[in-house]
Amino acid sequence: MKISIVGVGLIGGSIALKLKQKGIADFIYGIDNSTEHLNEALELKIIDAKVDLEYGIKNSDLIIIAIPVDAARKILPQILDLISENQTVMDTGSTKAGIVHSVKDHPKRSRFVAFHPMWGTENSGPKSAISDSFSGKAGVICNKEESAEDALKSVEKIAESLDMHLIYMNAEDHDVHTAYISHISHITSYALANTVLEKEREEETIFQLASSGFSSTVRLAKSHPEMWVPIFKQNKENVLDVLNEHISQLRKFKSALEKENYDYLEELISNANKIRGILDK
Amino acid sequence: MKISIVGVGLIGGSIALKLKQKGIADFIYGIDNSTEHLNEALELKIIDAKVDLEYGIKNSDLIIIAIPVDAARKILPQILDLISENQTVMDTGSTKAGIVHSVKDHPKRSRFVAFHPMWGTENSGPKSAISDSFSGKAGVICNKEESAEDALKSVEKIAESLDMHLIYMNAEDHDVHTAYISHISHITSYALANTVLEKEREEETIFQLASSGFSSTVRLAKSHPEMWVPIFKQNKENVLDVLNEHISQLRKFKSALEKENYDYLEELISNANKIRGILDK
Repeated sequence: MKISIVGVGLIGGSIALKLKQKGIADFIYGIDNSTEHLNEALELKIIDAKVDLEYGIKNSDLIIIAIPVDAARKILPQILDLISENQTVMDTGSTKAGIVHSVKDHPKRSRFVAFHPMWGTENSGPKSAISDSFSGKAGVICNKEESAEDALKSVEKIAESLDMHLIYMNAEDHDVHTAYISHISHITSYALANTVLEKEREEETIFQLASSGFSSTVRLAKSHPEMWVPIFKQNKENVLDVLNEHISQLRKFKSALEKENYDYLEELISNANKIRGILDK
Repeated sequence: MKISIVGVGLIGGSIALKLKQKGIADFIYGIDNSTEHLNEALELKIIDAKVDLEYGIKNSDLIIIAIPVDAARKILPQILDLISENQTVMDTGSTKAGIVHSVKDHPKRSRFVAFHPMWGTENSGPKSAISDSFSGKAGVICNKEESAEDALKSVEKIAESLDMHLIYMNAEDHDVHTAYISHISHITSYALANTVLEKEREEETIFQLASSGFSSTVRLAKSHPEMWVPIFKQNKENVLDVLNEHISQLRKFKSALEKENYDYLEELISNANKIRGILDK
């Protein structure tokens, strides 16, 4: 199978590495606005050739879009305009309602499969790509009934090759769930970093004292705005909804401390501990 | 050197393992309210004998207190009452002003060294102990001028044997810094877990969708209230101060989203990204 990867960054690069390793991809075309990323991806053998979008589309069985969600939404209709009925297009974006809506009435809508691999790191660029990234993680396919059967099967095969377990979901539901499970984590992490940077003026002290717990909680705060502003923008209503809930949960801790109600504080913590039972199933 | 470990849990157990491995401890007495933990620690060869507090104190060169900070504050004066001028006592608690204050006027104050190893996990009990836990992490010694020179040297040697780098600090400053670097991370993590548990009623969905990012941010929410309620209690003012700042930082994200001011959102995220330069020095 010949594959075009639009966006040879962390996600596109990681997918490419794994698909080559598994023998699924015979040849991978890399398409990217950044010549630097294309050259790095070539050097790292993530892609076999750097081409322009039109050339890549004409010569691939499968086109994988792995760029920020606002750019993905813009490029998808253009790609669908150019493909034949034998080609498949998939995306990898963290929001789904917007992109699905953008091609709702496109005559070749059925060639597109909306996909979201639930993995990422705070790093970006082809140098950060890791072939085993997706193993054991969830791969979500949205609105599968809007995709042609053979296109859906192609993408399911890709997800299985990435060793992901598949979940099927409505795009709107997906965006609600990811607001809780993924997007809010980034906001709390960003806000935590800003809190510490605001309060702790002595950078050396942060560096010296930083424990594994702090590093873990603040890790996502290293994630770039190029990727995350478009996600928050596209999922604004859901993210605001969860953010309001989160602020109200923090206020409960504040109130427990202010009132020195330590039984209540214990109750709040014990409730949070339930996440262990859910995550460590 | 003979050592008594009061509290053979995650921290006490990890210290014991490392000090044995390094040949610093010839014999380790374990003291704990939980017979189960004592038996586990014996089985895991974390301790050599389980004894009562008086016996342990009488027969040790060094006594290491590794129990929740409220209990540590209570037991320290009792231990100091029982020791001779040749023995040293150290603690490992996450708050320092309270415990230092509790023995301020004790005739044997100089035999105590206030210590805080900046490491921990969301797990507890001797089964969670790991000998290499502390390597490369900061070990903070507070109010060193209140400790006798030989007692201080003993504890410095312990910290070096744990492969920690030493930092000296005033107890009040320590509690301010740890509120930023460690305590607030736990509150945000607990509140995030409660947010998700409140909003996401379908546990199966949390489990299926949980990405590495979410797991990382919510990891600390598994930490037990027995340890953390006393920390928040003892460091109430500092924690409230940081919590207020954190809520106000989250409100900035909320405002940026509500007003669709994506330039401001980008600015907030770019600022948070600075944490990368500080943590990855």
